[in-house]
Amino acid sequence: MAAAAQLIAERGWGRVTTRAVAERAGLPHGAVSYHFRGKQELLTQAALDAFEQALPADQFAALNTVEDLLDVILAEIGAVGTMDPVLSRLMLETMREAERDPLLRERMGALLSRYRAMIVEIVRADQRRGNLAASLSPDGTATLLGAVGDGLLLHALLDPGLDVAAAVGAVRALIRGST
Amino acid sequence: MAAAAQLIAERGWGRVTTRAVAERAGLPHGAVSYHFRGKQELLTQAALDAFEQALPADQFAALNTVEDLLDVILAEIGAVGTMDPVLSRLMLETMREAERDPLLRERMGALLSRYRAMIVEIVRADQRRGNLAASLSPDGTATLLGAVGDGLLLHALLDPGLDVAAAVGAVRALIRGST
Repeated sequence: MAAAAQLIAERGWGRVTTRAVAERAGLPHGAVSYHFRGKQELLTQAALDAFEQALPADQFAALNTVEDLLDVILAEIGAVGTMDPVLSRLMLETMREAERDPLLRERMGALLSRYRAMIVEIVRADQRRGNLAASLSPDGTATLLGAVGDGLLLHALLDPGLDVAAAVGAVRALIRGST
Repeated sequence: MAAAAQLIAERGWGRVTTRAVAERAGLPHGAVSYHFRGKQELLTQAALDAFEQALPADQFAALNTVEDLLDVILAEIGAVGTMDPVLSRLMLETMREAERDPLLRERMGALLSRYRAMIVEIVRADQRRGNLAASLSPDGTATLLGAVGDGLLLHALLDPGLDVAAAVGAVRALIRGST
């Protein structure tokens, strides 16, 4: 449902209709409205799919170290202009809508939990290798690293000149210094 | 202009009119429309004022250590239910609008820069005291800490059960371990 995700980014969540999605996707309206129980379910699924596609779970699960994870964060956010504007706008639209729609919020929260669980495994593996202080809480560290990624993304959207690399460098230095 | 900020949170940025703000504030419409060059300027000023009021610059500048800053982050976000729903909704509305309005984005970016500059001073002071590794980039560390705050806020909005305290604990441990 890339058509729906694009339309959310273009028009705003509230201004997208099931009919417009069907038209953009080149499908009969009936096919779209039959498949989803209303517009909100369609847009929710489209947004979640887009996020999962932007950061594929299998690629994410294949990351070995926190350093690898920081490389991904830096690659996604670091260079101004490399950030996908459709995706960033979709993220902001979805966050705003999630504040109004408890079901969307719950599903976004669940998505976040799945990624956080993968980060916990990365943290644990690094602790076993001695790359990260064993005394650190894996859950707390994973929550922190996830927040760093989205917080930097948010701030880079407001300030395209933000030195994301320097911030990621500070995380690297703190992590290396922890052992 | 607390009336305008409340209306943005209630109705969404796009659905607030200058007239509605005047009514809510109990002012004649002419007084409001005379003072601001249009609705966008009014709402922009209202949003910025609300953010500055939520985290007063003088209180922020009075923070002495990174630990103090982490206490503020934890107090603001840590306990579910203590977060002001008007403020969080206003933040999401404003972030979304900033993606569409370059002037709002620029002003939000400037606000962010002012707070970041204050965090740089806190980091430097802690480095002088030996509470933080002198090798860390003050700018990078300040950018990181700002992102941690807003990233945790974003994630706590999606997942009210998020263990913000554990994440802040991980930052504390990393910082203490850095020296």
